[in-house]
Amino acid sequence: MENEQVTKRLSALRKAMEENKVDYYMITSADCHGSEYVHKHFRARAYFSGFTGSNGTLLVGKKSAALWTDGRYFLQAEEQLAGTGIELMRMEEKGVPEIEEYLQVKLQKGEFLGFDGDCVSAEQGKRLEKICEEKGAAVSFERDLADIAWEYRPARPANPVWELSEEYAGESCGDKLKEVRCILEKEGMDYLFLSSLDDIMWLFNLRGADIACNPVALSYAFVGRDECTLFLQKKAAQGLSLERFGVTIEEYDKVFDWISQKLNKVRGKKVTSPGGYLSHRMRKLLSGKSELILRESPTELLKAIKNETELSCSREAYLKDSAALCKFIYWLKNHVGKEEITEISAADKLEEFRRQISGFLDISFATICGYADNGAIVHYSATEETDRRLTKKGMVLVDSGGQYMGGTTDVTRTIVLGEVSEEEKRIFSLVSAAMLRLAEASFPEGATGRNLDILAREELWKAHLDYRHGTGHGIGYILNVHEGPQRISWQYRKEAKEYALRAGMLISDEPGMYFAGKFGVRTENILEVVKEEENEYGTFLGFRHLTLVPIDKEALDKRFLTSEDAERINRYHKLVREKVLPLLEQEEKEWLLEATKEL
Amino acid sequence: MENEQVTKRLSALRKAMEENKVDYYMITSADCHGSEYVHKHFRARAYFSGFTGSNGTLLVGKKSAALWTDGRYFLQAEEQLAGTGIELMRMEEKGVPEIEEYLQVKLQKGEFLGFDGDCVSAEQGKRLEKICEEKGAAVSFERDLADIAWEYRPARPANPVWELSEEYAGESCGDKLKEVRCILEKEGMDYLFLSSLDDIMWLFNLRGADIACNPVALSYAFVGRDECTLFLQKKAAQGLSLERFGVTIEEYDKVFDWISQKLNKVRGKKVTSPGGYLSHRMRKLLSGKSELILRESPTELLKAIKNETELSCSREAYLKDSAALCKFIYWLKNHVGKEEITEISAADKLEEFRRQISGFLDISFATICGYADNGAIVHYSATEETDRRLTKKGMVLVDSGGQYMGGTTDVTRTIVLGEVSEEEKRIFSLVSAAMLRLAEASFPEGATGRNLDILAREELWKAHLDYRHGTGHGIGYILNVHEGPQRISWQYRKEAKEYALRAGMLISDEPGMYFAGKFGVRTENILEVVKEEENEYGTFLGFRHLTLVPIDKEALDKRFLTSEDAERINRYHKLVREKVLPLLEQEEKEWLLEATKEL
Repeated sequence: MENEQVTKRLSALRKAMEENKVDYYMITSADCHGSEYVHKHFRARAYFSGFTGSNGTLLVGKKSAALWTDGRYFLQAEEQLAGTGIELMRMEEKGVPEIEEYLQVKLQKGEFLGFDGDCVSAEQGKRLEKICEEKGAAVSFERDLADIAWEYRPARPANPVWELSEEYAGESCGDKLKEVRCILEKEGMDYLFLSSLDDIMWLFNLRGADIACNPVALSYAFVGRDECTLFLQKKAAQGLSLERFGVTIEEYDKVFDWISQKLNKVRGKKVTSPGGYLSHRMRKLLSGKSELILRESPTELLKAIKNETELSCSREAYLKDSAALCKFIYWLKNHVGKEEITEISAADKLEEFRRQISGFLDISFATICGYADNGAIVHYSATEETDRRLTKKGMVLVDSGGQYMGGTTDVTRTIVLGEVSEEEKRIFSLVSAAMLRLAEASFPEGATGRNLDILAREELWKAHLDYRHGTGHGIGYILNVHEGPQRISWQYRKEAKEYALRAGMLISDEPGMYFAGKFGVRTENILEVVKEEENEYGTFLGFRHLTLVPIDKEALDKRFLTSEDAERINRYHKLVREKVLPLLEQEEKEWLLEATKEL
Repeated sequence: MENEQVTKRLSALRKAMEENKVDYYMITSADCHGSEYVHKHFRARAYFSGFTGSNGTLLVGKKSAALWTDGRYFLQAEEQLAGTGIELMRMEEKGVPEIEEYLQVKLQKGEFLGFDGDCVSAEQGKRLEKICEEKGAAVSFERDLADIAWEYRPARPANPVWELSEEYAGESCGDKLKEVRCILEKEGMDYLFLSSLDDIMWLFNLRGADIACNPVALSYAFVGRDECTLFLQKKAAQGLSLERFGVTIEEYDKVFDWISQKLNKVRGKKVTSPGGYLSHRMRKLLSGKSELILRESPTELLKAIKNETELSCSREAYLKDSAALCKFIYWLKNHVGKEEITEISAADKLEEFRRQISGFLDISFATICGYADNGAIVHYSATEETDRRLTKKGMVLVDSGGQYMGGTTDVTRTIVLGEVSEEEKRIFSLVSAAMLRLAEASFPEGATGRNLDILAREELWKAHLDYRHGTGHGIGYILNVHEGPQRISWQYRKEAKEYALRAGMLISDEPGMYFAGKFGVRTENILEVVKEEENEYGTFLGFRHLTLVPIDKEALDKRFLTSEDAERINRYHKLVREKVLPLLEQEEKEWLLEATKEL
């Protein structure tokens, strides 16, 4: 069945392409800042393709169109692209070309590849220019054709910007600027140009609300050795006290003009900027006016290593957030089958529990609440059409988190609602044991996520199973739920520098298994990297659990666990009991005691 | 106490330096082919420093001298450098500069850094040239000053070269050349220049005897798209039948002239060569005459993935070699304390058992037989001075291997001779369990040794222990005991491309622990990478044990093993029993049954 809405929108886009002499038009998932999640103003790819996942690139030709997305979204994209005529390109599957390889084959001499230069990264833009050059084609990046073809495009957000007090930030903007300048000096750089929003928020101790669930504000920053300019939408940024740190605030939209004028005077100076967040258009501007060096921003690592204030606030926030999830699980298990509960209403109820926590600001991402086979869709987001009623059978996968004055949380539990099959128990046991096994690792300084990942996958791989996503990501502090530079993943990625884990980093630990049409399991804790001991063999690090929520014993089965696995589960449950019990009501307490009993 | 011999030799070298206006002279461990083990003709570093380990670089200044070596050799180097005035630089230890960093600090404007351009790799030579250039210093690589100062230098070897029949090689030289040319064509290269001896031996199905324990012959090869020239010492290479594959044999020493003349005619052609084996002098010559591209040789990966003939011959050779080691262990346990046995005589006895195997050619490296605290010296080699008598107490570490018509073996067992302490049992149990744990892994295609290494180290790291060497290396087929490109090691090495494990590769699995002045433990098996299953999650690989020798139960203690560890040991011992029992004599059989009994 044809998807009329999408085909109509694609026609409008193709008309704009024809008028602008563009043969292929590429629409990414990005905003002007390389954000992972974007405001709906920037959701052109979802508008023109119908695919709403967080990662995807649409390439529209004169007659054909294709969409690239990763393993988390294969099932969802299949469903959403049905009837659109858009071909699904399953990234990293054998025989599936990357978009750049695809263009290398398809582009003909004299053709034009168009995209909005604001919404394509400097790195990708560079590669695309090279491909076009090799093929005798050309890039056209100045016009946002999606904007022309997009009816009723939502307005750009401009929500209030506020300052995070040092009581929560743990370090002043002035001290952070000092650290950054120290690194600039060491590396012989004159300016750092930042367009990644969470880095800017972290550096200036600001928070905003321009992206749902992500407390960031549209902004750019230019940090020099002894001057600093921050670009914000002034109407949304009143009464900030950054002048005391020598920070000048300029209007957000003036950044291009400002750079043109400013850099004209300092031509030849070295500007560094992280190429993954910088837009293609910005790169063209900066590299024409200065010596632009694309490399990781020093702010990414500084931000990732939480200070003592951030750590103690986070521990507290995770404890309260864990208690809220415990309350929810208790409520769910006691109400399912007795009243109407759906995936959406369950997620709402969980949000209600979180709202009761003092300091609650928002949820940290759209809750994934997938019942039964919806649990197999890795980044499932229930819609009115898919919303399913929860019954006393099988399991529901709930991946959720909150933004608090005190931290950003992220946790997944797969919750048993009634009878579960042997296979569900086996997989649930394997996945949960995998999570705890990684969490109990010790490792010397210098070890990276590529070294550690197998601890989560070992038993799954032995069963010749695997999950198609990474095992762990960094997490922000009252900021984005995903941040770098550390991650836990076994695969080599040529574009990503590998970072060693460092004491003070937070990282998720979230193995899973997904069986399309059947069920899905994921168990996710957030871990703090802690220093254990320094001895003649090196400095040994380990993990501390921030997440303290029982792993559902109703699906844990000793037959599928080693004795060490069972001990690890008992140890973890003892910790949960000790920490969370005081935060619960009487009936909840009784449930927790049962839920954390020794296996 | 001064080491007079070394100080006298250093004086002679400094005299040659002065006469040649050289301020620093560097002597590596290499021969002209980047070999790991070298003929004594090339052991200039050992001659001038007294340090005999396999890896070390000596830098002699006008007044000071320093020697860099890795963690395997710290103890040995400390002892051997005592009294020489040479400073020991412990590589990869905190605060210890690499030799190139050291030179960056020390070199002064106008000074000369000298080395023998034949015995420094192209990659290192390039880096040294760059450092000299930055410091306003210069490189002087044309003269081998060690040769001037070296009294009674051993002559260059020229031992007979022989052909390995297809019955053993499994593939003709012609077919191998075809494969290499196919890759050259794909990569747009005109010539492959090879100087790594084992790659040349593999490609032409030749074997030699120019390096002790390594069946290789001094040689170079130049493979073009439709011609091929092999450089050998003709007096040692009579009656070879390589002409039928279009291979021309030229005199070894003529290679420089030949290249000069040949490449003069084909100037501008693309020559590829592996930069780690190519000498600095050869690079200067080649890059002046052609477009030289330094990259891994395709032969390294082709050689590493053994063909069916090589695999089945290797399995057979390992079984026989394992039986020989079993016989030795039985003999040793029954004779120690009753007759005079020393580290050296024990190694000789082990060689005797190996010699009885049909097809025995040689041992594959100098046996490491380290009793008691000598076992803590990772690459210990007993000398007349250090040779210790074995008694009915503690453990002896024996790392040994053989060259057979049918394969190259390498195996380490730590053997209990009498009473062992609690601590020895704990460490022995941890290390042995670590070896088997890695050996039982399954993993998808694409996984590398950096992903797998932690399986061996996990429990050691939990105890905040570690060993300062890699976990696994590739191994040759009737060739060098160490070969690439695969390896198992957790640390990132910027100079080494990471290779995924592939079915048909052989790799060692050899965790250890070493306590200076106390004892050392290492348990090493060689594993074959095998394909297990291809399913929707990928192609899963695993390992097959080639080494089949019991792990000494007298030092295995269940208190230090998980129940899974114990099961793994029992499984392995059952396999050993089934395979090796038929190859033993009656008394040995009884011992093996006892030695492989369930824990």
